Amino acid sequence: MTKIIQIEGMSCSHCQAAVENALNAIDGVQAEVDLAAGTATVTLTREVSDETLRQAVEEEDYAVLSIA
Amino acid sequence: MTKIIQIEGMSCSHCQAAVENALNAIDGVQAEVDLAAGTATVTLTREVSDETLRQAVEEEDYAVLSIA
Repeated sequence: MTKIIQIEGMSCSHCQAAVENALNAIDGVQAEVDLAAGTATVTLTREVSDETLRQAVEEEDYAVLSIA
Repeated sequence: MTKIIQIEGMSCSHCQAAVENALNAIDGVQAEVDLAAGTATVTLTREVSDETLRQAVEEEDYAVLSIA
């Protein structure tokens, strides 16, 4: 299953790495950030709640606009 | 002795930390980055060449505009 997270505030490659690492640290998540688009594409190999994804991003101080 | 380094490309607090850490890793350097101004203020407690300061910043992939 794949979800797209719209994220506000990522400005550079450090931001990209911070968000990717935070998401990839969740068991069952493979994440890739598109900096220009302001999105993270996450592939889930087990059930992971939107809330868990949202918290991982917010803990890095970025705002989650949507998860779909 | 204090110098001001004008730096291009720092966009967020991660950038600020990367540049500050790179400069502070030089023996004799105390550095503080002003993100909004795009500057690093370095206080030198021993002689450190401009070239050494420049290299530390450039290795983090930011451009040095001037050192004065």
